[in-house]
Amino acid sequence: MLRGKAVIGQSGGPTAVINKSLIGFIKESANVEFSEVLGARHGIKGMLKEDFVDLKKLTDSQLYGIGKSPAAALGSIRKKPTDKEIEELIKVFKDNDIRNFFYIGGNDSAETANLIHKGSIEIGYDLKAFHIPKTIDNDLLETDHTPGYGSASRFVAHAFQGDDADNRSLGGIKINVVMGRDSGWLTASSTLGKATEEDGPHLVYVPEKSFSTEHFVKDVKEVYDSLGRCIVAVSEGLRDENGEFFIQSYAKKSGLDVIGKKDSHGNIQLSGTGALGDTLAKIISENIDVSRVRADTFGYIQRSFLADVSEVDAEEAERVGQHAVVASNSSESGSIILERSLSEKYECNVSTVELEKVAKNTKNMPKEFLDDKKPYTTNKFFEYAMPLTGGIEPKTQIFV
Amino acid sequence: MLRGKAVIGQSGGPTAVINKSLIGFIKESANVEFSEVLGARHGIKGMLKEDFVDLKKLTDSQLYGIGKSPAAALGSIRKKPTDKEIEELIKVFKDNDIRNFFYIGGNDSAETANLIHKGSIEIGYDLKAFHIPKTIDNDLLETDHTPGYGSASRFVAHAFQGDDADNRSLGGIKINVVMGRDSGWLTASSTLGKATEEDGPHLVYVPEKSFSTEHFVKDVKEVYDSLGRCIVAVSEGLRDENGEFFIQSYAKKSGLDVIGKKDSHGNIQLSGTGALGDTLAKIISENIDVSRVRADTFGYIQRSFLADVSEVDAEEAERVGQHAVVASNSSESGSIILERSLSEKYECNVSTVELEKVAKNTKNMPKEFLDDKKPYTTNKFFEYAMPLTGGIEPKTQIFV
Repeated sequence: MLRGKAVIGQSGGPTAVINKSLIGFIKESANVEFSEVLGARHGIKGMLKEDFVDLKKLTDSQLYGIGKSPAAALGSIRKKPTDKEIEELIKVFKDNDIRNFFYIGGNDSAETANLIHKGSIEIGYDLKAFHIPKTIDNDLLETDHTPGYGSASRFVAHAFQGDDADNRSLGGIKINVVMGRDSGWLTASSTLGKATEEDGPHLVYVPEKSFSTEHFVKDVKEVYDSLGRCIVAVSEGLRDENGEFFIQSYAKKSGLDVIGKKDSHGNIQLSGTGALGDTLAKIISENIDVSRVRADTFGYIQRSFLADVSEVDAEEAERVGQHAVVASNSSESGSIILERSLSEKYECNVSTVELEKVAKNTKNMPKEFLDDKKPYTTNKFFEYAMPLTGGIEPKTQIFV
Repeated sequence: MLRGKAVIGQSGGPTAVINKSLIGFIKESANVEFSEVLGARHGIKGMLKEDFVDLKKLTDSQLYGIGKSPAAALGSIRKKPTDKEIEELIKVFKDNDIRNFFYIGGNDSAETANLIHKGSIEIGYDLKAFHIPKTIDNDLLETDHTPGYGSASRFVAHAFQGDDADNRSLGGIKINVVMGRDSGWLTASSTLGKATEEDGPHLVYVPEKSFSTEHFVKDVKEVYDSLGRCIVAVSEGLRDENGEFFIQSYAKKSGLDVIGKKDSHGNIQLSGTGALGDTLAKIISENIDVSRVRADTFGYIQRSFLADVSEVDAEEAERVGQHAVVASNSSESGSIILERSLSEKYECNVSTVELEKVAKNTKNMPKEFLDDKKPYTTNKFFEYAMPLTGGIEPKTQIFV
């Protein structure tokens, strides 16, 4: 049975392994009678313009190279389609005999896939629509975790190991801002490389718990008084007691100039700026008597560093891309998820759930992963996250 | 001949391989009749307090672990000794029968070694004094390059490869601030992973050339108009036309609040803050019509990331540490240097020069390594720097 053409796009913030999902999809497509396999440049933006790449023409060597490359090989986009654009997209699909739509991305991308899915039903155009998960934020519902998270976690854990050694060398208070606007999954991974209690990070602040400068100063002072140094991990998406982004409400109060642009999904800019880290460093300098206070904002390296990828993550990313094609043989639509088996050895199966269940919403860290007394993670989080990184070797203790 | 005790300290900003030099030193010390081999915690600060570690007691397994750990295992310090402290240090050496002083660090550390060397001659205390080079900045005179630079270069080159892919995915203008207060060596390494002209970084600004916002905006606009995106590498130590740090003079003019603390060598804080990157992003946003402008400041990860070390660098770091001990058999003092052989294949020999020649001064990038028309590096720089990184694999081209 000829199934018409297939189109795939990538959307949202890239990851180190998002192209592995593309490769998994392309390879498995060879087993299905798609008349053509098209890649759209920059997600739905490219689809609207019929800006396509013929993915069947790629050589094995090209596929290998793309699979090793971080970030979205097809280009990405942050764009929520309007009702009118949904209609236009379906017209493009009709004109090109595209009967299979695949979208690699986070919850916003699942929402886009769902809008297209519902739109096609409404219009009466026979279209299969699948969402393939990716995000370093690990904040998708239903799936055990998201491809991209393991590699970013590996990078963050290694970065904190190195930074802990650096901080031991020169002392003082160090604040590292980690990506994650809605949830603290990636920030929590900063703890994965710790060998002893005295290793950093000593404090971990996530969006799941409201942040107050008062508690922050008190927590940091306590660690500093006890260890003579302190390393802090904070999520870029820290919230105040009203649920507003801390940096935004602090900026309002203090007259700080913060870039406040929003994308079409309504998200304000938190990454690609040092504002939060510098503000927290300033608060510490003003309230604690310590000569060395530094802040680093890890930035886009976290999701694009090609020299420290988790093998587990890379393999799973390829598997969800492959499974989307398999799922499209029997279902009309869905979001691919990873399900962790209950055996002792870490293992995940792939499966499919309804798009609605994944679209738009955010999965926060569960209570059992966060310490209820101090700003820190629990052993249960460690057990959950460690296998996804491919393993973080504990760091050697040094003399200071 | 019993040579008294030896003491070693680490000083200045750590690197990913500074402990390899310590290991090289410790291993070679076993071949010399030092009555004891002491490590001082936090450099001369520990020596003044007689805060020593017995380095002869370390097991092979500990040595292996320390060698793999980034940052200064003994702790570091930024401290220029006063005349009085030089006297105190020599008294400590006398009291402990320390006859051999080794100091791993940059040009400030070479200066400290030189001050101690001259002080001991003045006082008439028989002391050998050696400087073992390290710095990610690569700004020491006499040596072909410094241990620590190769690994930091490798990290920076990989980070730009990933960031280039990320920028291709989502577009816009991206500014990355790289360490280097006096010279642009590390910032220049951002170009080492480029496969084509169109890959980023497209512009490279270093302290060797004066920086003006006017030219900066013009350069960026030109690239952006031509490619639809632009990646910029800038050194944290950018200078204005008067030789003043750009961020400092810009802050004065605009009333920007910049932390301006200085250490005892007279250096103001440039690292551990996002101020420069955010300022440059603001300048671009105000002058070029582009929706996406982002800035990342790579920060301390550049010198402490343990998962992407250059093997060439690690091996050379160990060799300079070892050679310091060998050199102390025949000389009274000196700074260890790497000399590149003129053969086709990359190779370096170790040698010794007078402390005075390395102390305090900075080696800037030579003219032939910087393009004389545009803000960019030359092929000669590429040939110089690439072998030090252990090799950077070119990145696969993607579709956008």
